[in-house]
Amino acid sequence: MRFDVTILGSNSAIPALQRNPTCQLVNVSDQYYLLDCGEGAQVQMRKYGVKFQRISCIFVSHLHGDHYFGLIGLLNTMHLLGRKKEISIFSPPGLQEIIELQLRSAHGSLRFEINFHTIELDELHQIHEDKYIKVHAVPVQHKITTFGYVIEEKPKVGNIKKGFIEKYKPSVESILKIKDGFDFYDTSGTLVPRMQIIAEPTPIRKYAFITDTKPSASYFEAIRNVNLLYHEATFTQENKKRATETKHSTAQQAAEVALKVGAKKLIIGHFSSRYTHLGPILEEAKKYFENTELAEEGRVFKVE
Amino acid sequence: MRFDVTILGSNSAIPALQRNPTCQLVNVSDQYYLLDCGEGAQVQMRKYGVKFQRISCIFVSHLHGDHYFGLIGLLNTMHLLGRKKEISIFSPPGLQEIIELQLRSAHGSLRFEINFHTIELDELHQIHEDKYIKVHAVPVQHKITTFGYVIEEKPKVGNIKKGFIEKYKPSVESILKIKDGFDFYDTSGTLVPRMQIIAEPTPIRKYAFITDTKPSASYFEAIRNVNLLYHEATFTQENKKRATETKHSTAQQAAEVALKVGAKKLIIGHFSSRYTHLGPILEEAKKYFENTELAEEGRVFKVE
Repeated sequence: MRFDVTILGSNSAIPALQRNPTCQLVNVSDQYYLLDCGEGAQVQMRKYGVKFQRISCIFVSHLHGDHYFGLIGLLNTMHLLGRKKEISIFSPPGLQEIIELQLRSAHGSLRFEINFHTIELDELHQIHEDKYIKVHAVPVQHKITTFGYVIEEKPKVGNIKKGFIEKYKPSVESILKIKDGFDFYDTSGTLVPRMQIIAEPTPIRKYAFITDTKPSASYFEAIRNVNLLYHEATFTQENKKRATETKHSTAQQAAEVALKVGAKKLIIGHFSSRYTHLGPILEEAKKYFENTELAEEGRVFKVE
Repeated sequence: MRFDVTILGSNSAIPALQRNPTCQLVNVSDQYYLLDCGEGAQVQMRKYGVKFQRISCIFVSHLHGDHYFGLIGLLNTMHLLGRKKEISIFSPPGLQEIIELQLRSAHGSLRFEINFHTIELDELHQIHEDKYIKVHAVPVQHKITTFGYVIEEKPKVGNIKKGFIEKYKPSVESILKIKDGFDFYDTSGTLVPRMQIIAEPTPIRKYAFITDTKPSASYFEAIRNVNLLYHEATFTQENKKRATETKHSTAQQAAEVALKVGAKKLIIGHFSSRYTHLGPILEEAKKYFENTELAEEGRVFKVE
């Protein structure tokens, strides 16, 4: 099953000419989910060929502008291009009021429904489930209420073992019943337990999106052993003081988090505009966690 | 005196990959004024080397997103880059509430003052005057309350005639007094009237920014004989029905307005995303008003 993340923007508050503010597209089995939506996100999606009408859910980490100023424009364009399918938006309190005020000011209503989900609970909890994924919100530690999101695929039923099919030649109907959870009885009425028929399902993959935050043990448990971890790394250690003051992380700190929680792979992003070249940020992280990559725009990371 | 207009965006509601929504920078004697501020305006300013901290006034035509969704991001960046100088924002009712709500949601306050000027008067009237310009707002005819803006330079005192200086060899002090409005007395006490000393001032130049609107006589008088007219031309005549329904103008209609009001030069913009190539829009306008140009991003038009 496809499960990957496309980086559409990864700069921090001040957009640089070639670096847009935070936005990521998560693709699970060709279902589209958006993580944050900084200014210019819709143009980035055009640039990278993302069919944005397919997006069903948008998860906003917090209400600093570099994480949501592109949302109203995206919704507007979805409307103008004829969208009718509802969309769900998850965020800390306040976003619904902002979006609705702007829609009212234009004296127009959208052709599609927005389901606003305001996240108020200050602890790890599930906020969304559909056919493909479950999503948990986890509070992180920033200057204003901010949530990280953990996206995990739903467990899939394992395949029917080849040996069973060869031996019993079951009907299609029987196979569907087995997949649905029933045991199997052969022509003589003998039970063949389902557990002997079905192969082990592939392990569940998880992607964690953690921005903006200072490193904090409060969210470590929620992201333990994730296959892919995006963690903000606004600064290098040289600016650690600034990171502490602004409740952001350094590249070293992001790498240390990845190491502590046993992430398989780390992507770092949310780079301060002061860094023209990102090489030193990557080098710093790799010293502590070798399997680190930069969240550069247009890159696609598989969750595996 | 420098007086020109830089096009930073000129597309209509749906941004195209290479065409941003409406935004223009007006430079009068190196004083910066912004007209509309569509999403991505701040990045466009970086692209074209506009020092946006110099902007003193922002004039917003109306509250459709393609004319103001970039404003909050621009203000945010001005703040993050240390701006302390106040800024004035002129718009129809509603913008102040939107901006203030978004600022509150980020739990921060700006380091600089915003002076909101809400335009409520539904007739041509002066809304701003400083050392360099006067600005009038004029209601135009769109789906929601929308204003056009007419920017005129302030009359300058003409130069002291060369013949006078050669004949009387006045002191610097006398020259300043003449410039300030006083007459001159020669060494024998004889009056030389100021009118004989000062050359005719250069004629006042005007730039009119008219978007979004259907063509309407209601604003013709306000823009009569302007040196440079920007008029929206969302469609070609082929889509005239759509233009009428949506209260926009066609290229032919924009050209006819320019002709009727005696504009010296016309710029057309606010192009629908359906037009990949703008040649046909320009051709259509030029048939009716030869001195027409396309509002292409990065182009600078002198007001002369």
